[in-house]
Amino acid sequence: MTPSRWIPLIGWLHGYRRDTLARDLLAAVIVTLMLVPQALAYALLAGLPPEVGLYASMLPLVFYAVFGTSATLAVGPVAVASLMTAAALSGIAAPGSAEYVGAALVLAALSGLLLVAMGLLRLGFLANFLSHPVISGFVTASGILIAASQLRHLLGVKAAGDNLVEMVTSLVASLGQVSLITLAIGLGVWGFLLWCRRRLKGILHRLGLSATAADLVAKAAPVSAVIVTTLLAWSLGLGARGVALVGEVPSGLPNLALPSLDSGLWTSLAPAAVLISLVGFVESVSVAQTLAAKRRQRIDPNQELIALGLANLGAGASGGSPVSGGFSRSVVNFEAGAATPLAGAFTALGIALATLTLTTPLAFLPKATLAATIIVAVGTLIDLPAIKRTWAYSRADGVAMLATLVLTLLQGVESGILVGVALSLGLHLYRTSRPHSAVVGRVPGSEHFRNVKRHEVETDEHLAILRVDESLYFANARYLEDTVMALASRQPDLKHIVLACQAVNVIDASALESLEAINGRLKDSGVCLHLAEVKGPVMDHLKGTHLIKALTGRVFLSTFDAWHVLHGDAAGVLHAPGETPDASLKQGVGP
Amino acid sequence: MTPSRWIPLIGWLHGYRRDTLARDLLAAVIVTLMLVPQALAYALLAGLPPEVGLYASMLPLVFYAVFGTSATLAVGPVAVASLMTAAALSGIAAPGSAEYVGAALVLAALSGLLLVAMGLLRLGFLANFLSHPVISGFVTASGILIAASQLRHLLGVKAAGDNLVEMVTSLVASLGQVSLITLAIGLGVWGFLLWCRRRLKGILHRLGLSATAADLVAKAAPVSAVIVTTLLAWSLGLGARGVALVGEVPSGLPNLALPSLDSGLWTSLAPAAVLISLVGFVESVSVAQTLAAKRRQRIDPNQELIALGLANLGAGASGGSPVSGGFSRSVVNFEAGAATPLAGAFTALGIALATLTLTTPLAFLPKATLAATIIVAVGTLIDLPAIKRTWAYSRADGVAMLATLVLTLLQGVESGILVGVALSLGLHLYRTSRPHSAVVGRVPGSEHFRNVKRHEVETDEHLAILRVDESLYFANARYLEDTVMALASRQPDLKHIVLACQAVNVIDASALESLEAINGRLKDSGVCLHLAEVKGPVMDHLKGTHLIKALTGRVFLSTFDAWHVLHGDAAGVLHAPGETPDASLKQGVGP
Repeated sequence: MTPSRWIPLIGWLHGYRRDTLARDLLAAVIVTLMLVPQALAYALLAGLPPEVGLYASMLPLVFYAVFGTSATLAVGPVAVASLMTAAALSGIAAPGSAEYVGAALVLAALSGLLLVAMGLLRLGFLANFLSHPVISGFVTASGILIAASQLRHLLGVKAAGDNLVEMVTSLVASLGQVSLITLAIGLGVWGFLLWCRRRLKGILHRLGLSATAADLVAKAAPVSAVIVTTLLAWSLGLGARGVALVGEVPSGLPNLALPSLDSGLWTSLAPAAVLISLVGFVESVSVAQTLAAKRRQRIDPNQELIALGLANLGAGASGGSPVSGGFSRSVVNFEAGAATPLAGAFTALGIALATLTLTTPLAFLPKATLAATIIVAVGTLIDLPAIKRTWAYSRADGVAMLATLVLTLLQGVESGILVGVALSLGLHLYRTSRPHSAVVGRVPGSEHFRNVKRHEVETDEHLAILRVDESLYFANARYLEDTVMALASRQPDLKHIVLACQAVNVIDASALESLEAINGRLKDSGVCLHLAEVKGPVMDHLKGTHLIKALTGRVFLSTFDAWHVLHGDAAGVLHAPGETPDASLKQGVGP
Repeated sequence: MTPSRWIPLIGWLHGYRRDTLARDLLAAVIVTLMLVPQALAYALLAGLPPEVGLYASMLPLVFYAVFGTSATLAVGPVAVASLMTAAALSGIAAPGSAEYVGAALVLAALSGLLLVAMGLLRLGFLANFLSHPVISGFVTASGILIAASQLRHLLGVKAAGDNLVEMVTSLVASLGQVSLITLAIGLGVWGFLLWCRRRLKGILHRLGLSATAADLVAKAAPVSAVIVTTLLAWSLGLGARGVALVGEVPSGLPNLALPSLDSGLWTSLAPAAVLISLVGFVESVSVAQTLAAKRRQRIDPNQELIALGLANLGAGASGGSPVSGGFSRSVVNFEAGAATPLAGAFTALGIALATLTLTTPLAFLPKATLAATIIVAVGTLIDLPAIKRTWAYSRADGVAMLATLVLTLLQGVESGILVGVALSLGLHLYRTSRPHSAVVGRVPGSEHFRNVKRHEVETDEHLAILRVDESLYFANARYLEDTVMALASRQPDLKHIVLACQAVNVIDASALESLEAINGRLKDSGVCLHLAEVKGPVMDHLKGTHLIKALTGRVFLSTFDAWHVLHGDAAGVLHAPGETPDASLKQGVGP
């Protein structure tokens, strides 16, 4: 419970040296160059005025630097959270209006509170409900939706829509109004960015830059597209020729203010805030862990919840929108050599400087440039081969992924992710509700037991050994009852059933009652129930329960012990409850 | 796909003989004597006219006899379904009104359709979502609610309420209007029924009846309370003295008719129908399985869904309310010797006879008699010691049970069961999201490996063996990442990590990606990842995945093989992807 447990900055700041400072400053300069156009672009995507993106890139970064545990995670506005913000606010107010901006602040503050609460209550495990296939399907669909939503800025038309069908229909209907100059700028920037991404690094490398330096310059190159198209728009007066520009951006730093406390607004935004928080947290932690591992560092997921929560509260209090850790900027931050979270705080300073000095030229930046930046950036989100890969590995996971993808595209982000989560849960429960089990027999002359259907093994008409390959809990307790009773009714001369439990890690109260019912029913039909290979922690729980007291058979240390004692016993003498030899309960198989 | 697969009657009818007929007829007489007062009482409980209870005890029983697989399950109106019916209809119309009765028919028909659909789609596993502790907490709370709701008939006052607090408040407020004659009848019947239950069997047994016969007579005794109080009410004119009587019951058989097809009504009753169907199915199957086991018979849960569904459709088409298998009547049916489902059809005939002949006297039956019958009957539902027992066995299950119990009492049946289900799911996922795992070391001189924290074992600073005690799936995939990366960052000289997978029954797509991420991150920090003791079916799935291609280490047949090869290897030579010796993938550990 040291202060550095809650404020990691205290832990690393006292070891801060000049060379660390140099590394953090260099990383901050490069990330700032990358973040300025992205901040504006993601604000555009969220339907917010451009300055909101810049505001979301200041205070949140400082808060994360103080409370975060990752040295390299670059926090700020990101594509998926911006899309989800747009979806959440679309029913609340007209995009760009003061009410809409106010609702974005509330959304950020709500996400922040939720994340902090989850961190304090150690509820990070809730993020586990989002399975990889669901996240992957959702992110791919989001990438497609984002790209589709930006096509209108590239074409210079007015079009709208909450899902892919509406967007495409609206785009097609507006094809008559395409602004050719806008399209030329958009396609030019798009082509340039793709060229930077695919060729520039190699060219710079051949010109003598180190591989890392070449990579960083190539990644910061989009800023040159911003500069060039801004100069073009300003010098040629493109605004008057039908090219949509970013327009006036207020100069200066954001004012600090509490977001609206309208309880109706908070309630209606709460579901969206939960989803944005969880998705943002999962993505951030996954990026942070991947980067931390490369330097054998650790991040603390529960502290990350608190840090991301405070970053979002900071956004809500300083005019920003929901933030999380971004993948591409974090990688750049890492490769540029960021050594501590202070690199993030320096980035915030860089954005503040830009907000103080660059707002006048930024007014001339064409929206088509930003749209092209977004489209190229989200290309990395779309992973269609993952569908095939997941489908090949597991039908259930493939179904969950496809359903999430299709529903997100057709019904929007919230339905998509909720159905995906429900489906993963349902399919998981379905799978574990029919656990694999096998009647086993003895490999002749050995102490090994194998599936009677797959191997030539010894069996006994009075004795059946059932190996259960799953923990026993409420979802599969009844299936076990069915399986055991079917076994008993198939073998009329049966006197003993042994459940071999080497793969049973947990027996919950439902399964315990089912075992009691099985024991009772087998007793009624003259069959003894025995257990074998019960694990130490499971046996600790079972001791003293009615099951063990009433068990008609015994608890054997190993399957072979059970075979040894019961093989050939056609008498099937029922032990009266309580007569179970005590020694058999004291098995020593500790975990 | 034989007809007897879908119509079990065909299977058993051709072997029907005269002695089977005698047994079924005897059982039917005894169950009819028990069912007449219960049918009236449960109609009272559901807020329905008395004849609805009788109608629900005719056609449904015939349908179950044709399609059911249990020889002894007694289908008809039951306490919990009646309470749930009252709760579902309370917001729809005034109890007893024609609209209310119409809604009850719709509820029965809806439940019937749902059950049949679940049976045809083999969705019986959905019932597994209701864990034993949730069912148990729910049934106990229902018993308490039912008893509380009947106190008003015992006291002869008008009182109402949807939950325990409202019921008790309303009862206390109406204590001034207590009808003393009603109370005397109610308490008299209550005392008589308790005496029958506790003493009569022993007395009859001492008088020379066999134990079974004495038990059956004692269980049919309530009918004498019905006869005596009816005669009293008729002869003393108690109806005029403020004693509430059953009143006019239409004579004759029910008319067949389709229930209302109002889609708004169907939609609003759908959630309640789902819960009634699931609870009824779970209870019926559990009773049927217990009784079947005593004769080494089997029931088929999916066919039971169809049979119970058709029984409910029958109820909906013939003026009845939702039905399911009742515990006490089924036990009586079994003990009276019912040999085939035909006993149920004969019971339906008995009820039809009663409806044709007894409606005039039944009009004089005091409601207090029925209330006392219900209160005594639900005593068997209330199982408070189960709370203590479940709590002692498992905190998580105890919490789910208590929450279901308390919420059902305070918020009503639907909230109670829904929160219980959500809580069991959440707690199950929480538990499996933090699976037990242990770093193991070698028991010196042996091939066994044990937890380093519990045993004196050999370890190696370059090698860590982690035994994972749970299947790997989305809910615990990230916990595994945390655990492995924490292990790697704790041991700076680590070169090899072996995951011992003997308890891993499934690796889903999320866990597969986590293992790939772990492999990649460990590679970045110079540690090889190896697998050991992977089960046959799991290995079949893993073959050909990116994980196996990219695995920096090997797949070992046993933990000891891994130890043998890796112990003392400080070099940590990384195998390039694909170099993994093929033989190691061909491990023969089939299930």
